[in-house]
Amino acid sequence: MNALWLEDRVLGARDDVSRPVPPPGEALVRVRLSGICNTDLEMVKGYYPFTGVPGHEFVGEVVSADAAEWVGRRVVGEINASCGTCATCRAGRRTHCPTRTVLGIKGRGGAMAECLTLPVENLHVVPDHVADEVAVFTEPLAAALQVQAQVAIGPGVRVVVIGDGKLGQLVARTLALTGCGLTVVGRHPRKLARLGDRGIATCAAGDLPSREADVVVECTGSPGGLALARDAVRPRGTIVLKSTYHGETSLNLSGIVVDEVTLVGSRCGPFAPALALLAGGTLDVTDMVDDRFALADGVRAFGRAAEPGVLKVLIRP
Amino acid sequence: MNALWLEDRVLGARDDVSRPVPPPGEALVRVRLSGICNTDLEMVKGYYPFTGVPGHEFVGEVVSADAAEWVGRRVVGEINASCGTCATCRAGRRTHCPTRTVLGIKGRGGAMAECLTLPVENLHVVPDHVADEVAVFTEPLAAALQVQAQVAIGPGVRVVVIGDGKLGQLVARTLALTGCGLTVVGRHPRKLARLGDRGIATCAAGDLPSREADVVVECTGSPGGLALARDAVRPRGTIVLKSTYHGETSLNLSGIVVDEVTLVGSRCGPFAPALALLAGGTLDVTDMVDDRFALADGVRAFGRAAEPGVLKVLIRP
Repeated sequence: MNALWLEDRVLGARDDVSRPVPPPGEALVRVRLSGICNTDLEMVKGYYPFTGVPGHEFVGEVVSADAAEWVGRRVVGEINASCGTCATCRAGRRTHCPTRTVLGIKGRGGAMAECLTLPVENLHVVPDHVADEVAVFTEPLAAALQVQAQVAIGPGVRVVVIGDGKLGQLVARTLALTGCGLTVVGRHPRKLARLGDRGIATCAAGDLPSREADVVVECTGSPGGLALARDAVRPRGTIVLKSTYHGETSLNLSGIVVDEVTLVGSRCGPFAPALALLAGGTLDVTDMVDDRFALADGVRAFGRAAEPGVLKVLIRP
Repeated sequence: MNALWLEDRVLGARDDVSRPVPPPGEALVRVRLSGICNTDLEMVKGYYPFTGVPGHEFVGEVVSADAAEWVGRRVVGEINASCGTCATCRAGRRTHCPTRTVLGIKGRGGAMAECLTLPVENLHVVPDHVADEVAVFTEPLAAALQVQAQVAIGPGVRVVVIGDGKLGQLVARTLALTGCGLTVVGRHPRKLARLGDRGIATCAAGDLPSREADVVVECTGSPGGLALARDAVRPRGTIVLKSTYHGETSLNLSGIVVDEVTLVGSRCGPFAPALALLAGGTLDVTDMVDDRFALADGVRAFGRAAEPGVLKVLIRP
């Protein structure tokens, strides 16, 4: 089948990738649309040594599954495929199953292809009225909602989101629904304007008050974001880390101790509320699609997604 | 007066240090005994640019105070002197007051002297039956209890304490009272034996299971402790950082994100329960005193405190 293929940090379009064969319990899904995430861009830079088809944001249609009622359904899918039986899974932390595979990231071919496979239990049916270009945001929106699953945020909480990119936009838009005191810090006037249009306060890094935020969410996708977050958070405040990128970051841990700051790593989130927000029209993402490419042009699509000021780039098989 | 004096990373004993004059609201306290903390040793290495009398662990006797009922009382004292009126103080975070001074650490001469001053509101009366060599542990024991003030720990929680030194001992001994599943990792057989004698499980770093602990408390006082903690903690687990030391630490933040680990900086803690634990005899610390020196021998005392295997060294003015 046609697919993008990542190997030794080189991304290419191929027409000879084997179509995945679903094992028992898994569905074969024809991909209708996939989205490029910063993690995909980082994987090309070497963040994680993945060989295979990248891509973990998608909407597709079930081609085959053990249970016939799934066939033909339009779906999105949770990206972690877990064993379900180990101590971690039984403790309710299935996204951390030590033997998990992760769609397009770890041990499992991804969504930038004609087809993918996922366990049926990972799939969520997309309501008919939700367009593909909206449904494809379910996975990153779930990741944005994970912030609230980990840290209590509501009215009276002063929150700063660092980063106006794809993830920062979604985190900001979900947090704005909580009634918290929200400011987004970014470097791209056009990206910030899209938040300003929605009534979300924005500012440049230099205008951010020091040591005032109760919660800072770091969404820049680069090590510099942490330094900004560290400056913005108040003593006993919380920094939520959302970015994954290649390399190590230097940190003054004694400062974390003296200020009693909490750092919370945050990854994948709950699909059901994400899909509900999109289906209910509560959260609009249509302005975030900046470009669309055919699968054969996937390498160009990655280049476009890496341009400053560009938000979501979609790939259609 | 006689005192130790730290300046430009050089520690010396002096007999010409001015006796501090208490401003209104503060008491003059004659020091009966002070203790050497790892933070003191780190300050000599340059962790924090303090010039003056070091020392923040003490028991003393009030010489003068505005309120006559304090005079003659034997006391221990909270080390952060806060304004009480700023937004941080009014929010209940007085140990984080931005204009605070800190006994023997920041803007305020410390306890390795004949006398010190502290706000009367910082003082706690030591019950008569509590010996000086026990009462002097109130401050570090309060810091150990701060772990439980920040992270819920009880039966069923698997906790690893990294470090068998002064702070690790106190953290382990307080956590053992919670009924949690506790293991202490250390490098000094003699220090570990003191925990083993109290029924606390200990092991060497190499024998620690990977990714199993719900909570890891890092008490080593050195950057290597974090790597051990990171390996020991389970996904979605919590690492409590207690150590303050000079320099920066390199950290793979993407790993923190992927494993959704929480890092919690933890500093000063509640004096009242610490003093109650000591006064009630619930927590024995007498075995932790390894040596005693006169104030004039304070430089030697610091050398002794830095020797491997040595726990608390006390200084008597």
